[in-house]
Amino acid sequence: MIIDCHGHYTTAPAALEQWRNRQIAGLADPASAPAVAELRISDDELRASIADNQLKKMQERGIDLTIFSPRASFMAHHIGDFQTSSTWAAICNELIYRVTRLFPDHFAGAAMLPQSPGVDPKTCLPELERCVRDYGMVAVNLNPDPSGGHWTSPPLTDRHWYPIYEVLVEHRVPAMIHASTSCNPCFHTLGAHYLNADTTAFMQCLTADLFKDFPTLQFIIPHGGGAVPFHWGRFRGLAQQLGKPLLSEHLMHNIVFDTCVYHQPGIDLLARVIPADNIVFASEMIGAVRGIDPETGHHFDDTKRYIDDSPQLTPADRAKVFEANVRRVYPRLDEALTARGR
Amino acid sequence: MIIDCHGHYTTAPAALEQWRNRQIAGLADPASAPAVAELRISDDELRASIADNQLKKMQERGIDLTIFSPRASFMAHHIGDFQTSSTWAAICNELIYRVTRLFPDHFAGAAMLPQSPGVDPKTCLPELERCVRDYGMVAVNLNPDPSGGHWTSPPLTDRHWYPIYEVLVEHRVPAMIHASTSCNPCFHTLGAHYLNADTTAFMQCLTADLFKDFPTLQFIIPHGGGAVPFHWGRFRGLAQQLGKPLLSEHLMHNIVFDTCVYHQPGIDLLARVIPADNIVFASEMIGAVRGIDPETGHHFDDTKRYIDDSPQLTPADRAKVFEANVRRVYPRLDEALTARGR
Repeated sequence: MIIDCHGHYTTAPAALEQWRNRQIAGLADPASAPAVAELRISDDELRASIADNQLKKMQERGIDLTIFSPRASFMAHHIGDFQTSSTWAAICNELIYRVTRLFPDHFAGAAMLPQSPGVDPKTCLPELERCVRDYGMVAVNLNPDPSGGHWTSPPLTDRHWYPIYEVLVEHRVPAMIHASTSCNPCFHTLGAHYLNADTTAFMQCLTADLFKDFPTLQFIIPHGGGAVPFHWGRFRGLAQQLGKPLLSEHLMHNIVFDTCVYHQPGIDLLARVIPADNIVFASEMIGAVRGIDPETGHHFDDTKRYIDDSPQLTPADRAKVFEANVRRVYPRLDEALTARGR
Repeated sequence: MIIDCHGHYTTAPAALEQWRNRQIAGLADPASAPAVAELRISDDELRASIADNQLKKMQERGIDLTIFSPRASFMAHHIGDFQTSSTWAAICNELIYRVTRLFPDHFAGAAMLPQSPGVDPKTCLPELERCVRDYGMVAVNLNPDPSGGHWTSPPLTDRHWYPIYEVLVEHRVPAMIHASTSCNPCFHTLGAHYLNADTTAFMQCLTADLFKDFPTLQFIIPHGGGAVPFHWGRFRGLAQQLGKPLLSEHLMHNIVFDTCVYHQPGIDLLARVIPADNIVFASEMIGAVRGIDPETGHHFDDTKRYIDDSPQLTPADRAKVFEANVRRVYPRLDEALTARGR
């Protein structure tokens, strides 16, 4: 089985973005703020938005199931206040739930959280609990920088975040550490902010002892871990210099990197330095980079090809990357699949 | 000839740091602020600080010459105001000048600039001119984020920075884009902020057309380009998506990456995806990562070994990386060497 652990609903019907734009306009002019009930998207519209896009590409590429979450750049936690994020997260998560009900064989849900800069993460817990309990979601996306490029929250290893980790651990739900849109003009969202957030999150974990407090907590660091595998020697050396254990002991029971790295040499490097147990298949397809690579004739985000073609991976490694690791890191997904005989 | 284009004076006599600490204390209590003349470091002290450290390692490793600049993390442009940075930069640059006079065969100078958050970069020009004209320096370090991790300056492609570029181009002086200490607790200086700055700078250049305005401007992006080579497909794809030319045309006449990547697989990846013309040898030795890699028995920052051992590089490529590219990107160094028959 081939499981893509990193898909976002980037193709949602236009009504969603229109509603969001009205919500944002309503921040300045409350009279124009839309009611939740004004957003109407039919099952047929949802079906079409998936069948012609993600599902079609999954079938072309041989991907059986995608862990699917709201569009990352649309989370935009920096907009408005907690109530803004709360309403928006509830809407986006419900759409994901409906997609997973319409295509139960092909999609499992992951939630966005109603984060808001300067607001206690505890406020995210009701939505998190609802998504796990009522929607059967198997993971969450956790934004390490709800300010959108101003980095005003404490590091992920700070006790600030512990209420979220307590609930994640209780429900055996992993967190993908995924930033959202940058509103800082220094950082391009897709080409700088996301990758910086990945590198930053890993280094925050390296300097602290978060996983002593939460030995079963699981983080997925997307986009191949940002700069980390390319600089694996630097990170090994910094850990040594800081008196930390080997990274294999210190972090790698709790962190996996996904394979959203859009060329063969990058995947080869990832597979060369990161143990196969710590790599999970992902493409983030119809996402950041949607074009066809003129050097290969294939889509940049068709990452399955790179894994199939990487000389660094044995068939046993590939089975881990495509399926076994995902089922280990996302235990609720594994149980749901097992219950259905998969 | 083997030229290391990225060395910092990390081993300066302790009197320098003591003076700086008094300068910082003087920001709160002007009565305690030290005069510049109170800093006294003899030539013998300078000689010892180099001969037992950088020069010794250069000789052990077979490096002929290092382009040497003030300690990056000590630039700390976020501290105090322009006057603070101006005094501090003048002191640090003068020390570099003295080192290059004491060891003219082994060190060429690169300047730090007296940047200060929110201050017009024009204010850096007198120090820049002085370092080039009076000190014979061949490069500058340009901090893309003088705020130290808050990223409050405009992108490097903004006209804000143009006065600096005009002088760099006039004097044929390249800029290494190098951040300094992070005072944002989210970002570890060595493990996150530096690498993020590298990635960010490249992406800023990608989204704009800076090099149309300055076709001869040269940027060195250190630390192997941050996350960029590992995600080269992503950057090629983003350029295509944004309607930019191929990166080879759009950026690679004006940007080189250095080899401060502290393990063999990273250097192999760099050499596999980045043209040999765009890689310059560097180690940043006695810098971020000073230990010995238990996997190899050699110093993490002994990057010459990785280049010597990389199957991706031909002997002709290595000659470019070790010497020819540096002489091309740093024309004033090339002229000074040529004048001395090297």
